[in-house]
Amino acid sequence: MELWYTEKQTENFGITAKIDKTLHTEQSDFQKVDMIHTLQFGKMLVLDGMVMTTDMDEFVYHEMISHVAMNTHPNPKKVLVVGGGDGGAIREIVKHPSVEKAVLAEIDGRVIEVSKQYLPQIACELTGNPKVDVQVIDGIKHVMEHKNEYDVILVDSTEPVGPAEGLFAKDFYQGIYEALKEDGIMVAQSESPWFNKDLIRRVYKDIASIFPVTRYYTAAIPTYPSGLWSFTLGSKKHDPLAVDESKLFDPPGTKYYSPHIHKSVFRLPKFVEELLK
Amino acid sequence: MELWYTEKQTENFGITAKIDKTLHTEQSDFQKVDMIHTLQFGKMLVLDGMVMTTDMDEFVYHEMISHVAMNTHPNPKKVLVVGGGDGGAIREIVKHPSVEKAVLAEIDGRVIEVSKQYLPQIACELTGNPKVDVQVIDGIKHVMEHKNEYDVILVDSTEPVGPAEGLFAKDFYQGIYEALKEDGIMVAQSESPWFNKDLIRRVYKDIASIFPVTRYYTAAIPTYPSGLWSFTLGSKKHDPLAVDESKLFDPPGTKYYSPHIHKSVFRLPKFVEELLK
Repeated sequence: MELWYTEKQTENFGITAKIDKTLHTEQSDFQKVDMIHTLQFGKMLVLDGMVMTTDMDEFVYHEMISHVAMNTHPNPKKVLVVGGGDGGAIREIVKHPSVEKAVLAEIDGRVIEVSKQYLPQIACELTGNPKVDVQVIDGIKHVMEHKNEYDVILVDSTEPVGPAEGLFAKDFYQGIYEALKEDGIMVAQSESPWFNKDLIRRVYKDIASIFPVTRYYTAAIPTYPSGLWSFTLGSKKHDPLAVDESKLFDPPGTKYYSPHIHKSVFRLPKFVEELLK
Repeated sequence: MELWYTEKQTENFGITAKIDKTLHTEQSDFQKVDMIHTLQFGKMLVLDGMVMTTDMDEFVYHEMISHVAMNTHPNPKKVLVVGGGDGGAIREIVKHPSVEKAVLAEIDGRVIEVSKQYLPQIACELTGNPKVDVQVIDGIKHVMEHKNEYDVILVDSTEPVGPAEGLFAKDFYQGIYEALKEDGIMVAQSESPWFNKDLIRRVYKDIASIFPVTRYYTAAIPTYPSGLWSFTLGSKKHDPLAVDESKLFDPPGTKYYSPHIHKSVFRLPKFVEELLK
């Protein structure tokens, strides 16, 4: 018997991956949480039927949501990750020596626990690192209750349906603006330029209406819809395109991000440029 | 009844797309030639069970295999495409005003005819353009029989199995070197950095052993395995990284390539850089 995990990434398109076992399955208070083992990608965390991360390609998303902002801010000390319960973004953030406190605000504690159990190489910094503060809380509420406190805030959300819907709202971005210090930077994962054009336009417009510097960049992630993913960066002061690449910190152990690509990821295919106009 | 086209892109991974009809199916002298209509991507040309091109994303591959070399050569007059029977590369090449002759050497005439019938917006320059010379011939033989003749040669092949196997051989690259003029440039499609690491290493090494300038670049193509595709460029003289982007020709009607991304596509994720070492 062959078992294949098939995910409809749009109404009319999907991916399919051969699996040898289901390691875990449960309904948490917020979503369905599954861990499967695929032959192509290794272990795969699936939330509400959508791939969140896999052994093979997790590094792309986690490095790219983190290091672009972390290397644009000259001295990021206090960082917040909203969502991101697998711990991958936190793992990358604490590579930066300037970091004194990295807060994880994940609404679903089960994602954290399941990740710790099955994805220890991703969740490795969620236990035992005194700089890391793991909180099982509503990230939106946390953002709204903190003012002028963070240097960098990353919105490491699931798709804009279910528990993550509010993480794509303009009010939330305004809250992030206020939770950031005077030269703070935010990055939000912003889906696929092929399949989520309307959402991308709206998120970009909303962030650009709040932050003086707004930039959009992409990364290639095989297990995400279309294989091309995007991130929207809002900054109060520092421009990621104004850095001197030769002086950037080269985070140890990365497999995708390097200072050498820091600026080039903002050079967009023409159809993506058009999207943002 | 729902029909889904499912393609195993590797032994353990595939894509699946909902279709509403099969427009054409035949066994040519060389391969199985299918044209289906998918709801996500529009019409899709499938050769031997592998997606070659689709209405939605064909522009990425065709622009990126063509314009990088065409805009690196200062004055490309005579250009050869080996393979590429759908005509997409030819369509992009003839946008360059310097071009006097664009030769298509496609071994399978049925691919040309089926493309003309079902993909007229891709095959549009294969009929009626006096600069275009469509030849149903063995591209390898053609290359071996011509010396010092072409400014640019593009290897627009299918996967390295079946009829295209010889298009990934070192002898063939040596033949291309000799078929090129003294400042000629070649580009070969070179598969996915995620799934074809051994092939990429070999192709890069072979081309680098023949051409003084060898460069490798990527483009994001949703319907190709992993969504990240690559091209290897060999040049006798001109370096694509030495051009002045501000002076490059901006080919009309492109949706992916622009002079703005000409150099950035060579800035590679770290794991891809490592591949080439």
